[in-house]
Amino acid sequence: MVTDSEARQIYQSSIHFDGLNICAFSPTIFAAWRTGGIDGVSVTCGLWEGFRDSIANVVQWKKWFEEHSTQIVQAHTVRDIRSAKLANKTAVLLSWQNTAGIEDKLDYLRVFRDLGVRKMQLTYNTQNYSGAGYTELRDSGLTGFGREVVGEMAKLGIVCDLSHVGPQTSKDVIEYAPAGKPPCFSHILPSGLKEHPRNKSDELIKLIGAKGGFVGLSQFGPHMEKGNESTVDDYVEALDYVIELIGEDQVGIGSDSSEGHGRPSDFMAWCNKDKGYARRLTPWGSQKVVKPLGPLAEREELASAMARAGWSEEKMIKVLGQYLSTHSMNGKATNLD
Amino acid sequence: MVTDSEARQIYQSSIHFDGLNICAFSPTIFAAWRTGGIDGVSVTCGLWEGFRDSIANVVQWKKWFEEHSTQIVQAHTVRDIRSAKLANKTAVLLSWQNTAGIEDKLDYLRVFRDLGVRKMQLTYNTQNYSGAGYTELRDSGLTGFGREVVGEMAKLGIVCDLSHVGPQTSKDVIEYAPAGKPPCFSHILPSGLKEHPRNKSDELIKLIGAKGGFVGLSQFGPHMEKGNESTVDDYVEALDYVIELIGEDQVGIGSDSSEGHGRPSDFMAWCNKDKGYARRLTPWGSQKVVKPLGPLAEREELASAMARAGWSEEKMIKVLGQYLSTHSMNGKATNLD
Repeated sequence: MVTDSEARQIYQSSIHFDGLNICAFSPTIFAAWRTGGIDGVSVTCGLWEGFRDSIANVVQWKKWFEEHSTQIVQAHTVRDIRSAKLANKTAVLLSWQNTAGIEDKLDYLRVFRDLGVRKMQLTYNTQNYSGAGYTELRDSGLTGFGREVVGEMAKLGIVCDLSHVGPQTSKDVIEYAPAGKPPCFSHILPSGLKEHPRNKSDELIKLIGAKGGFVGLSQFGPHMEKGNESTVDDYVEALDYVIELIGEDQVGIGSDSSEGHGRPSDFMAWCNKDKGYARRLTPWGSQKVVKPLGPLAEREELASAMARAGWSEEKMIKVLGQYLSTHSMNGKATNLD
Repeated sequence: MVTDSEARQIYQSSIHFDGLNICAFSPTIFAAWRTGGIDGVSVTCGLWEGFRDSIANVVQWKKWFEEHSTQIVQAHTVRDIRSAKLANKTAVLLSWQNTAGIEDKLDYLRVFRDLGVRKMQLTYNTQNYSGAGYTELRDSGLTGFGREVVGEMAKLGIVCDLSHVGPQTSKDVIEYAPAGKPPCFSHILPSGLKEHPRNKSDELIKLIGAKGGFVGLSQFGPHMEKGNESTVDDYVEALDYVIELIGEDQVGIGSDSSEGHGRPSDFMAWCNKDKGYARRLTPWGSQKVVKPLGPLAEREELASAMARAGWSEEKMIKVLGQYLSTHSMNGKATNLD
C-alpha cells in the first residue's frame, strides 16, 4: 500500500505528462504548471485557424519560450521532456486539435513539423478534407486525402490524435496507420462508463491499444459516469476502466484543462462553433462543466487519489508519465522517440 | 418531321445554352462560340483554387469581358443571355466546379456571388467541408457545414451543381435545398445507359427533376453506352433517355468541352489530382476520350442529329436552351431569374 505522503513523494520525483491543455496560456499558466509539478504538456496551438493564423500561434509560443525560459522549454522529442524535468521546467509540446492549419496543402505538414508541431488531431468535431468529427450525422471515414495526410504525418514524425474524431474515421486511421506509428486518443473518456458520442467505445480503445497507441483520459464531468458530481476518485476509476482494457503501459492523463478561460466565454463560443463562427456544435460551451482534477497547481491530488485506489508505485509512475522514459507519450513505438 | 436544313435554321434562330465548358479559354474559344452559335455558356473558373487564386480567375474574366466585348459579355441573370443572343454575343456565366474558393468562410459566397459566380459545384470528385465527391470510398452525405453552404447559396442566388458529387451527398442536397431553389446536374450522363460512379442513377435524376432542377448532358465517350464509339446520334439518344425520366422542360446541354486543352496535358493532370497536386483520382486524364458533339464551332450538328432522331421543333428549341426564355437554366424556378 502506498500512503498519501508516499504518493505525493512519488508524484514529485516522477515525470508527469499531461496529454492535452487548452488553457488561456500565459505566464500565470506556466507558473501553475511548475507549482503543480507538470513536467510535460501538450498544448493546443491550433484548432480552427488556417495557415497564417497557425503560424502566428507558433510564433507566439516561440516568443514565450524565449521570454519565460526559466519556466518552459519547447519539446520536440521525448528526451526534451526528461531534460525539462531535470531542469525543473515544463516541456511544452506544440499540438493542434485540427488539421485546419495545413488548409489543402500536404506540404504544410512538413513546415509545422519543423516548427515543432508534433501532434495533430485529424479533425475537430466536424468534417474536413481528411475525415469526420464526432458531431457529423454521417461519418465519412478516412477520406482519400486523409490517407495521404496520415501517411505523411507518420513519415514526418507527427502523432495523429483521434480524440474528437468520429468513430468510423478513428477506426480507419488506426487500421491505416503504419506499424510503429500508432495514432493516439490524447484526451478521451470511455463510453463503457458513460454513453456519449464524444466518448470512445471499448472496441476502439482496444483497437488503438493493440496498435500501441497512447490513451489519455480527460476529465469532462458531463461525459463521466457521475456527471458533474464526479470527483478525482471517479477519474482514477475511469483510468482503471481503460487500463483494464489495454493495460497500464499506454494509459495516461489528458486533462483537457481550459484553465483561465471562462465558461461561457468568447473563447469557448469560438471553439464550439464550426470553423469558429458557423453553427453551434454542442451545448457545452455555456453549460456548467466540473473538471474533477481541479486546478493545474493542485495536480498532485491525482497521485493521492491513485494511492486511495490502491495503486502500486509502479502503476502510478507509469500512468503519470514515466513510460515516457522508456517508451514515449505515444505508446511503445512513437513518432516522438 | 423537321428537315436537316430546317433544323439548322431552328438552331440559328433559337437560344443555345451550354451548361458547362472547361476550355483553354482565350479569344480563340470566344470566336468558336460565336461560329458555333453558342449564345450562353457556363464556364469553369474555379476547381481546386483557394480564395486568392479564385479571385485572380474572376479578374482575368473581367479583363476578357472588357477586351473582347464584341464577342462575350458576362451573364449575371437569364435576361443577360437573352440580350446577348440579340446582340450576337455569347453570354458567359462564371461558375465553379468546387467550393474550394470559399475555403472555410461562408461569407466568401457573397463575395463571389457579387462578382458574378452564380453556379458552384459543391465539391469536385473528393471530400471537402461540405460533402463527398464521387471518387471517395464512403460518401459522407451533406455535412453540417454543407447545409449552411447550401442554405446560403440558395439565399444569395447561387445554383448548386451536383455533377461530380457523390450519390448520398447529391441526394441530401436535393432534399435539403429549399423549394424553388433546386440544385442542378450541369454535366452528367445517366447510369441507366452506362454504369459508372460518375454517372447519375435514374433515381437521382428523377429526384432532381421533381425538385425542378436542370439536367445537362455531357458527352464523355467512356461514360456513354457505346464508349468512344459514341456519335452525336448516341448523344441525342442519351438526351431522350433523360427526357423520358423527367420531361423535356428541364433537360439541356452541358458539353463539358475542354477544347484547347490536350489530353494528356498539364491542365488535365492538375484537374485529375486531388487538390491539383495530390494523388491521381481517375484514369481519364491521359486516356483517349471521344467527345461526340465535336468542336464548339460545329455545335449546329447537334440540331441536325435532333432532326434525324425525329424531334419536333418545340422539343429542339427547349433542349437547346429556349426554356431560358420562360424558365431558366436551372429549371422552372431558379436562383438566376
